[in-house]
Order: sequence, then C-alpha cells, then structure tokens
Amino acid sequence: MPETAPFLRVLAGEPVWPPPLWMMRQAGRYLPEYRAIRAQAGSFLAFCYDPAMTVEATLQPIRRFGFDASIVFSDILVVPDALGQRVTFESGEGPRLTPITDGRGFDRLRETLDMAHLEPVFATIRRLKAELPAATPLIGFCGAPWTVASYMVAGRGTPDQAPARLLAYRDAGLFRRIVERLVASSIIYLRAQVEAGADALQIFDTWAGVLPTGEFERWCVEPVAAIVSGLRESHPATPIIVFARGAGPRLLELKDATGADAVGLDTATDPHWAARTLPEGTVTQGNLDPLALIAGGRALDAAVGRILAAFRHRPHIFNLGHGILPETPVAHVERLVELVRRG
Amino acid sequence: MPETAPFLRVLAGEPVWPPPLWMMRQAGRYLPEYRAIRAQAGSFLAFCYDPAMTVEATLQPIRRFGFDASIVFSDILVVPDALGQRVTFESGEGPRLTPITDGRGFDRLRETLDMAHLEPVFATIRRLKAELPAATPLIGFCGAPWTVASYMVAGRGTPDQAPARLLAYRDAGLFRRIVERLVASSIIYLRAQVEAGADALQIFDTWAGVLPTGEFERWCVEPVAAIVSGLRESHPATPIIVFARGAGPRLLELKDATGADAVGLDTATDPHWAARTLPEGTVTQGNLDPLALIAGGRALDAAVGRILAAFRHRPHIFNLGHGILPETPVAHVERLVELVRRG
Repeated sequence: MPETAPFLRVLAGEPVWPPPLWMMRQAGRYLPEYRAIRAQAGSFLAFCYDPAMTVEATLQPIRRFGFDASIVFSDILVVPDALGQRVTFESGEGPRLTPITDGRGFDRLRETLDMAHLEPVFATIRRLKAELPAATPLIGFCGAPWTVASYMVAGRGTPDQAPARLLAYRDAGLFRRIVERLVASSIIYLRAQVEAGADALQIFDTWAGVLPTGEFERWCVEPVAAIVSGLRESHPATPIIVFARGAGPRLLELKDATGADAVGLDTATDPHWAARTLPEGTVTQGNLDPLALIAGGRALDAAVGRILAAFRHRPHIFNLGHGILPETPVAHVERLVELVRRG
Repeated sequence: MPETAPFLRVLAGEPVWPPPLWMMRQAGRYLPEYRAIRAQAGSFLAFCYDPAMTVEATLQPIRRFGFDASIVFSDILVVPDALGQRVTFESGEGPRLTPITDGRGFDRLRETLDMAHLEPVFATIRRLKAELPAATPLIGFCGAPWTVASYMVAGRGTPDQAPARLLAYRDAGLFRRIVERLVASSIIYLRAQVEAGADALQIFDTWAGVLPTGEFERWCVEPVAAIVSGLRESHPATPIIVFARGAGPRLLELKDATGADAVGLDTATDPHWAARTLPEGTVTQGNLDPLALIAGGRALDAAVGRILAAFRHRPHIFNLGHGILPETPVAHVERLVELVRRG
C-alpha cells in the first residue's frame, strides 16, 4: 500500500484537501449490482462467508465511485457466531441469536474464536489486496464489545438495547465476563485481518449512545481501549478509527482514553462543535445524514457544504454519520462524490 | 403557590440541597393504583380527556412519594388531536394518526386549536390546584414542535422519525408550515395552562437527538425559542424547562438561544460534563437512567450517587433521564426518594 493514499495520510494526521471519501455500508442494497449478487446467495451469513460474493460486493462501490477506501464486506456478528452463539438473519428482520441471560448461557460460548470459521473473512481480505486498485486502502473492522454484547444478551436488535443494559446493572460480573471474552476475541480477529492485508481498522460501537456515564466508561471506553492497546502491541503501524454512535461530548474522552487514531462522528454531532472542541490535529470522520443523501437536491448540497466548511484544511475523512440506506438513489451518491471532490 | 417551594426556588436559580425531586411519567403504569383506574376507562385519549381520571392519576405519585412537583396527566399528542388530526392509541402499539405527507394533508388541519376540545386539560389543572398540597407546584407541558410534527408526518413513532426528517429535507416549506402551526398552537395551549393554574412549564423535545446540525437549529432550537418568547410576553414569571433528548453538547446552544430557565438532561448526558460545561448558575434537571431504577440495588445507589456528586450545591432538580418504565418496582422508587432526600 503506497503511504501516499489520501485516506492513510489523513489517518497519520495530515490535512489532505479535498478530503478522502468513503461511506459506511458503501457495499449494499442501494446498488443494483449488489442486489443482483445478493439474490444468488441464501442466508445473509452464507453470503458473508462466501469470499467470491464478499470480494465482489466490496469492489462494486470502488469500481462505480472510486472511493478513497474500501471496507471488507462482512458483519459484526460473525464474532459471536465464531464463539459458538450461532447467528441467523431473518429476511427483513435483522439478526437472531439465542440470548445469553445467565452464567449457563455464557458457559456455552467457546473460550476462543473458531478461526477456521472466520477463514472466509481473511480469504476475502487476501483476495481484495490482489484485486483492489493499488492506491485504495482496505479497512478491516469489528463491532465494539458493548455493541456486540448487547446483541448477544438481547438475541436481537432492540430500540435501546435495554436487555443488555439491565443485565449489566443486575449482574455486572457476568456482563464483564462477556465483554472480556469479546475484547480478547476482537484483538485476535483484528490482528488476523491485518495479517491478511487490512491497511486500517474501524471499531463500530453503534449502541454506545444508550449508555449513561459510568456505564459508558466501563462498557464502551475501557474495552475499546483494551482492543486498541492490544493492536498497538502487535501492529503499531495500523491506524484505528473508533466510531461510537451517540457518544456526544464524550468523544473527547473516547479519543483520549483509547488512543485511537481517528474518531467517527455520528449524524447528530455538530461538525463545528467537533472542530472547535476536539484537540488540534484530531483526525475526524463523518458525518453526513444518510437521509440528506436520500433527499438529494439543495438539502444534500447544503448538508455537504456545512461539513466541508467545518473541517476545511483539517485532517478529516468525509463519510456518512451512519450507514447508507437501501432507498438511496445512486445519482445522489454521484452528486456527493462530485461535491466532496470539489472540496 | 408559596415561592418557597424548593422546585420553584431552584428554577429561580437558587441551589437547594438536597435537590427537589420528581420523575418524568411519575403518574403511570408502574403504580398499581394507576393500573386500577386506567382499567376503568376505554381508550388512552378518553382517559386523558376525563378530568376525574387525570386528577386522580396526577395525585397518586404525590400521595405515595411526596414528590416536589406534580405534572398534569396528559399526552403531547392532544395538540394535533385538537388541530383536527385525530389521534388514536392502539393498546400496546403507541399512537396512530393519518400521516400528513403533502400540502393537502396540511390543509385539512384546523387553523387554530379547538380549545373546547382541550377544556378537560384546563379543568384538570384547575381541580389539581384545589386538591394538591399547597406546597406542591404543578407543571403544565407540551411537546416541542419538532417532536409533535414528527408524529404528525409519520403517523406513528418510528426508530428515528425518518419520515419527518425526509419531508423536512424534501419540502422544507411545507414542513415549516406544520412547525409554525405548532408554535402558534403551543403558545396558546401553554398560556391557557398557566391561566388555569400551572406554576411551571416543560417542553418535551423527545426526538431532538435525531436531527443533524442545521436541522437542529431550524426545527428544534428556533421553534422552542419562539414558544418561550411567546410565553415571556404574556407570563414572564412562569419558569420554563426544556428537555431535548439527544441534544448532547448542543444543550449549551439550546439554553442560550431559547432563554429557557432550565434544561433537562437525558440519560446519556454526563452530569460532570454538564456541571463543568454549562454556564455557572444554569439550572439543570435529570438524569437517572430509568433502567438503573428497574435494576435497583447497588447499581441504583451508585447511579444516584454519581448524579448527586456532580450537582452538589448547584441549582439542580433530580429527575430521570427519560420517563419511568412500567416494569419499575415501586420499592425502587422508594429507595430513590430516600437516597435523594439524604442528599
């Protein structure tokens, strides 16, 4: 990977303008070519474990839009799946797992990740390194322990992940064991992604925002810091982005305490507040509202303009504030690329 | 109302310790005596429009716990209901309205609130003033225009109120007309509540957190500021609390731009951040996690302790960070009262 890729230069703290651009969930259902290959596979996880499919899905948005970074097509729930808590996705219903509600549920987990089960992810990364344009870095990722644990406890997504929050209050010892298992597993999983060829890593804490103070430190900040620290020991040159949706002003603490190279900003974060408040030189990533991308027109132009203005000539990676939605018109993504390339 | 009520003294900026205490949705399903009277009525809105029921529901938590403020039992959606967009509540399903998706939908609204339709709310307030303990202030309330509009557009609650956000992007002119109708209606509605006897007002912007910058200013801050300003003109002595869930660091702007007397803090707001960052003397309210109240035990004690420590000897009103949940054990509320009274 040439060190000159704008995405990696920004992650190293260099302001590059216009900013590099990629989109969370850039490989996905808004693309007709994705829907075409997705229709060939059975379950969503079968698709995730089929390197022919995941390589093609990862490449599609790069071919079409020439984004400045690619991200391996996978899902955060492959980790519990590889810990023996089998995951299924009902069509249009989201994930389903057998909930872990007590120590016996926890004891049914594997002590360590089944790496053979995850081999298709590593195979995907190796193949992508051969097939991606030389200048396009590849991002590996995992879910943060809190977010992954919240699905493992609830057995599904819920409006505010209350089942995991309640378990963490009622039996903090058990919840800590789940989180520690995930910290250890995530370090091993991310290391293997780097070994396979990932140039950068992102940790997704989608559900961080439902945690009050105290719980946020314990279940979001500390486990993510432990993962970053584990990666630093083995792979100090690999940059790490932390995206904690709903962190609000706690972004500051998250950045400081985890030592991540960059922080993702969610849709609700005021880019001017972030530019003003985060320490000089903090690398940021975000944060266009995916609904502005669906709406297009003047609303899109204005929203993109606000973000560009806030981060002008700072080390910023342009992205959405949350994943792109299936209803997004491809023409609006083309417009986004045009606006960001103009700077 | 004696000016010496701790709740009103804090709203006037005086630090009162231990802090006054009330709970959002303190009249509700976690109370057996509420479930008993609720079972007698038909629909939820019929219950809201029956002063015998709403007076009793409002008084129940005051009798049981001696809270420092009462809040009239009602619902934020009585406003669209009184604008002719009839609201129903399916059992266990939340509200249902005929969605406003275009100008014709908007044109079917009444130009002004049907005040006769809302008369039961004002009757409830008048009766409560006679029946409440002399030292217990009564809070009137309404939903903020953004939150109410988000239900009027979607016709229901959704995980992120996307239908209203999309309409606001696609047809800002139409969305502005809805919001302006709500601003004018809310001013009239709150004024009538004060005339009937409300001692303080709270404006609930439950869905503020889904709005990105720009949209937050336009649809949350400006309309709430217009309502506060309207009330200041007619009733300058009535204190106003603004609760914008998910406002994050934008609380600062909300407080400054609206001129509200106090800001409510949601569950995710770090109390230490708020105490450190909001201007000296800012009156705050909140922000115990309702799930800590369900969990009880050491988790509850620790969570209450953190909030008391952050706001010690500042003008703070102890409350939850969101409404109390139906599964909450009454004994845990008793413990909360004991902990807060101890200071």
